[in-house]
Amino acid sequence: MATKRFTLHPDRYLDPNPAVRKIARELYRTVKDLPIISPHGHVDPNLFVKNEPFPDPAQLFIVPDHYIFRMLHAQGIPLERMGVPTRDGSQVEKDPREIWQLFADHYHLFRGTPSGVWMDAELANVLGLREKLTKKNAQRVYDFIQKKLGTKEFRPRALFERFKIAVLATTDAATDTLEAHKAMRADGWKGRVIPTFRPDGLTNLLDPSWKSSVRRLGELTGRDVTNYRLYIKGLEERRSFFKSMGAVATDHGIQTPYTHELTERESEEIFGRALRGLTTAQDAAMFTAHMLMEMARMSSEDGLVMQIHAGALRNHHTGTFKRFGPDKGFDIPAATEYVSNLRALTEKFGNHPALRIILFTLDETTYARELAPLAGVYPALKVGPAWWFHDSIEGMFRYRANIMESAGLYNTAGFNDDTRAFLSIPARHELSRRMDSNWVASLIARHMVSKEEGRDMIHELTNGLVKKAYGL
Amino acid sequence: MATKRFTLHPDRYLDPNPAVRKIARELYRTVKDLPIISPHGHVDPNLFVKNEPFPDPAQLFIVPDHYIFRMLHAQGIPLERMGVPTRDGSQVEKDPREIWQLFADHYHLFRGTPSGVWMDAELANVLGLREKLTKKNAQRVYDFIQKKLGTKEFRPRALFERFKIAVLATTDAATDTLEAHKAMRADGWKGRVIPTFRPDGLTNLLDPSWKSSVRRLGELTGRDVTNYRLYIKGLEERRSFFKSMGAVATDHGIQTPYTHELTERESEEIFGRALRGLTTAQDAAMFTAHMLMEMARMSSEDGLVMQIHAGALRNHHTGTFKRFGPDKGFDIPAATEYVSNLRALTEKFGNHPALRIILFTLDETTYARELAPLAGVYPALKVGPAWWFHDSIEGMFRYRANIMESAGLYNTAGFNDDTRAFLSIPARHELSRRMDSNWVASLIARHMVSKEEGRDMIHELTNGLVKKAYGL
Amino acid sequence: MATKRFTLHPDRYLDPNPAVRKIARELYRTVKDLPIISPHGHVDPNLFVKNEPFPDPAQLFIVPDHYIFRMLHAQGIPLERMGVPTRDGSQVEKDPREIWQLFADHYHLFRGTPSGVWMDAELANVLGLREKLTKKNAQRVYDFIQKKLGTKEFRPRALFERFKIAVLATTDAATDTLEAHKAMRADGWKGRVIPTFRPDGLTNLLDPSWKSSVRRLGELTGRDVTNYRLYIKGLEERRSFFKSMGAVATDHGIQTPYTHELTERESEEIFGRALRGLTTAQDAAMFTAHMLMEMARMSSEDGLVMQIHAGALRNHHTGTFKRFGPDKGFDIPAATEYVSNLRALTEKFGNHPALRIILFTLDETTYARELAPLAGVYPALKVGPAWWFHDSIEGMFRYRANIMESAGLYNTAGFNDDTRAFLSIPARHELSRRMDSNWVASLIARHMVSKEEGRDMIHELTNGLVKKAYGL
Repeated sequence: MATKRFTLHPDRYLDPNPAVRKIARELYRTVKDLPIISPHGHVDPNLFVKNEPFPDPAQLFIVPDHYIFRMLHAQGIPLERMGVPTRDGSQVEKDPREIWQLFADHYHLFRGTPSGVWMDAELANVLGLREKLTKKNAQRVYDFIQKKLGTKEFRPRALFERFKIAVLATTDAATDTLEAHKAMRADGWKGRVIPTFRPDGLTNLLDPSWKSSVRRLGELTGRDVTNYRLYIKGLEERRSFFKSMGAVATDHGIQTPYTHELTERESEEIFGRALRGLTTAQDAAMFTAHMLMEMARMSSEDGLVMQIHAGALRNHHTGTFKRFGPDKGFDIPAATEYVSNLRALTEKFGNHPALRIILFTLDETTYARELAPLAGVYPALKVGPAWWFHDSIEGMFRYRANIMESAGLYNTAGFNDDTRAFLSIPARHELSRRMDSNWVASLIARHMVSKEEGRDMIHELTNGLVKKAYGL
Repeated sequence: MATKRFTLHPDRYLDPNPAVRKIARELYRTVKDLPIISPHGHVDPNLFVKNEPFPDPAQLFIVPDHYIFRMLHAQGIPLERMGVPTRDGSQVEKDPREIWQLFADHYHLFRGTPSGVWMDAELANVLGLREKLTKKNAQRVYDFIQKKLGTKEFRPRALFERFKIAVLATTDAATDTLEAHKAMRADGWKGRVIPTFRPDGLTNLLDPSWKSSVRRLGELTGRDVTNYRLYIKGLEERRSFFKSMGAVATDHGIQTPYTHELTERESEEIFGRALRGLTTAQDAAMFTAHMLMEMARMSSEDGLVMQIHAGALRNHHTGTFKRFGPDKGFDIPAATEYVSNLRALTEKFGNHPALRIILFTLDETTYARELAPLAGVYPALKVGPAWWFHDSIEGMFRYRANIMESAGLYNTAGFNDDTRAFLSIPARHELSRRMDSNWVASLIARHMVSKEEGRDMIHELTNGLVKKAYGL
Repeated sequence: MATKRFTLHPDRYLDPNPAVRKIARELYRTVKDLPIISPHGHVDPNLFVKNEPFPDPAQLFIVPDHYIFRMLHAQGIPLERMGVPTRDGSQVEKDPREIWQLFADHYHLFRGTPSGVWMDAELANVLGLREKLTKKNAQRVYDFIQKKLGTKEFRPRALFERFKIAVLATTDAATDTLEAHKAMRADGWKGRVIPTFRPDGLTNLLDPSWKSSVRRLGELTGRDVTNYRLYIKGLEERRSFFKSMGAVATDHGIQTPYTHELTERESEEIFGRALRGLTTAQDAAMFTAHMLMEMARMSSEDGLVMQIHAGALRNHHTGTFKRFGPDKGFDIPAATEYVSNLRALTEKFGNHPALRIILFTLDETTYARELAPLAGVYPALKVGPAWWFHDSIEGMFRYRANIMESAGLYNTAGFNDDTRAFLSIPARHELSRRMDSNWVASLIARHMVSKEEGRDMIHELTNGLVKKAYGL
């Protein structure tokens, strides 16, 4: 294999202004080897229970990753050809070499995208590939990767340690029994993998599985959930269980961050209608709004940090959803309003001294207009890092430029990678650290903060803020 | 005349960061002489039929150009003084020297604006003027230009060839008989000027000329358009005629990109009410929404690329509209929503393998939030270039920064100049190529793509993407 | 005290790109010593009447400044501990040394924020402190400041002169008798401090003091305001009085810039209901919309420049508002729409040749989309500078990048500091001048304007535009 051509440049992603780059390079050096703290993401914990080799390059990089296959899909390549499984089990491409070749044939599509940057880094830094993936070398690279994946060094636990992950949070349904987490504890592995309490399936009355989730909640808590009061009690018990298993946070995925407190009676009525299958759209909206209030109340009691991920319009293409299910690249951001929607929450909990609510957005117009001013005055509110489509070089740049002046550094929550692609974790944190170094360097270069202050800030950005925000 | 003072700088518009500029300069060199492809614009095709000299500097640069006269108007200069004709024929300034002097007196207003940049380039590069236009030299410059315009080299066809225009698309009403295009074909001129099918006058039921347009449609298709079915048939025939005349695209100017499919019966009812002059606002909105669906359906059949230009609130000042008509600088962008509005369209046609719909916006907040994610997954959707107010240095910069990471380079549609100012075409393409060079250079400088990749990308940006998007 | 460590760097806030910085530095040199023109702000005019020493560092910098205490509040420090007075007079921290120490302990929170930048400059440049404020030196710095404040050089009038303030506008309720302004005139002080007419208390029917303000209006104008006609007459007389006292402008703080003209009869009815305490939300919205029209009409007659500050959702946290009153850091920007909302105003007054309406926004998405296109065609409209949360380094950068290409330099209104913190005035103007220098330098570096043009532009930005906009 060619050895020289494809080593990642040591100054990659650093600001091209020579004055800023020089400072950024120095700052980055001071944090590049710090352990990774990953307080929010979607890695499957079973990876570390089984600790089996990853099956093949296609299953590792393409089939499960909507960041990747959506881009080929946009060029007219059907999901079937990329091996994405259908719900009804109808035929899709099974040959991983075919899928990998297809991906390599279109690798140019990722030029200048975060997926391209992460992928390059995974191949070069995690796998040690010394050439750029091309149409021509695709099969050779396939063999190279496949061989690596067979070695002990590439088992999930070994990589976890090699990546220097101090803590990795998974995201788990409120009704999950956390068997994987129990198993990891049981076998004495030192890696810290913790669950996160995600009750969306129980709080969204329109979720098709809502009723069975409520039934499951009853089974898990040992009593039939026949009314709202028992439902709340059940949720409290599940939180308590998650906390006992190491959870430090909850997570709430909603389209609109509307908050509103229902009376006990209203809650019972809506809940009752839901049990009888009579939920209206209005019911569901009010109940979700109310449950955000309840979750904040519980967080104020049990100390779990509350994450609110708002603004994704999920499964935009119904045909694709029906054929392939969720998370197929068809989740599109929508304009989102926080200042009025969150008002019930801030009125009641905004000034709470110990509560922590971390807000994420897909609508960047709210950075400077809404989120930074809110987090810049309410002690309970922090702004989470640039999310999803905006977790990118330009996205991170906009995040810093729009948020920091009003929110202040110390009302933000550090970085999280939010990924289900385990191998991309180091690349994502590296990119974030380099971009944070650029930002701090640009302050130093403009003489707004001193070099000493800057060194302190880059440490906060890398490790301090995230630890504080999540109580880690 | 002074010869030294006003030559455009060879590095104009290039990124001022020396590291980026150096690379950008090299990239630009590789594309600066490529032919111009102009798939969308508003140049009058009769220019090339008659091929007569342009009348005078005022008629060439000021009277017809709302980019120019709006800026003087904002400083309190009435449109009448700039020779803008009134609808009722009431008196306006007629002396082109007076108008030119007024313009020159206020030329400083265009500092730092795209109009200023284009104008400088037109004067210096197209006309060969070697001084900057000022209050003092205005009349001398007038003479200089007037003399040039009288030469054979400055006839429209000669300029077309000198500008190296490979293809120029005009924009034409669906009921246009394309006489100019026929005449150009007939006389054997080699310049490729093609029509574009714009049916707004027929699809907007509230257009004051709607009824006469429908009547005209009947005349052109040889049968009275007495119902919706015949109307659709008529539109299909017109598209077919446009295609036979070289058209590759349709164009749709709407305020809100709402799409919705009516039933045959609903369509007939609304159409019937319209014929009887009973259209309601709701009728018009639903019909426009439905006709976008129909146009997509027709495009999926005849292969014409569909361009959607959404978000302009036209003729904001009624008094000016009544006195002077449309296109007088009073079109103002409005917030525009795509994700929900386009959903009927994407549900039905988004995954169509051959259809191409190019989306343009005046609301830049939708770049990263809506358009890039949509184009990054739906094969039928492409994002058109920065449009109108945003077709500028900073606007292009924001376009690249906000769109490319999520949409990917290959789901965009290259550049188009969208101009009615024929002489500005080279300047607009040059500016675009320079800005694209800046963008690619900034990726190279940050080691995100290699120089080889960058060279490929700048060619795609200049010629490849636009050819693919419009099937040219 | 350490002398070397903390001098502000001469290149502070200048673009870190060496090519741009060099030019910016030269431009800044040409304007840095120009007098300060402050046409809009909230400094208390009584400062200059009494001309007493500022009491102490805490009262000077912390207790009255919501920019400062909101940031500590966001970290969980109650307003009481920062000495912010309660409405009911209940106990708060009184010891200025304690408050100052608390502030110094948390001074790192302001890293990279405009408040931090201004504060550094106030301490270093106004007070001559030669070390950076820290937890450790807080009490020493306190003594240093306290001593300075006791000297004659630090009395308000002396500072006014030292700051080279050519004119300072205060903001005053329409029912204010301007005693302070009278007193300054009476004692012959040369400093030009002028009032600004702010009628919000009289035009917002939902203001809790509305009725007493109307009663006061009656007292001041010598006739009982029993109907709308007399109310309008009263407002006209107050404007006339303000003008006689030197006012050049009015100011209107509203949430939504909706404009709408009521009939005389509708106005009388709504006004009558308001007098009887029967105002509805709809009444109030329509009346505010109508009064913007009336104020524009009056401005078109008396020549007072009309400032519209739209988009702040005030007192977001009710509990804090009840306990501490308004202006406590809980005003949050909200999405704001101008194009449709202002239409009644622009239809009637937009093309008025002499009227000047300056628009301010907290919603930056409207910069390029709405405000720049509006100001770029309507002679009556100008865009005011980046406001409040956006009056910052990045905010000013976005302002220039988003507004100037469409609005053009000459349809903007220069800078204003909008501050109640008198000592911060030089720092705010300095920051603005440096940022403006960066912007012009970036145009020169890209060869879009010449150095000569650039020198003219930076003078316009510093002094010319603001004088023209406010008729100073």
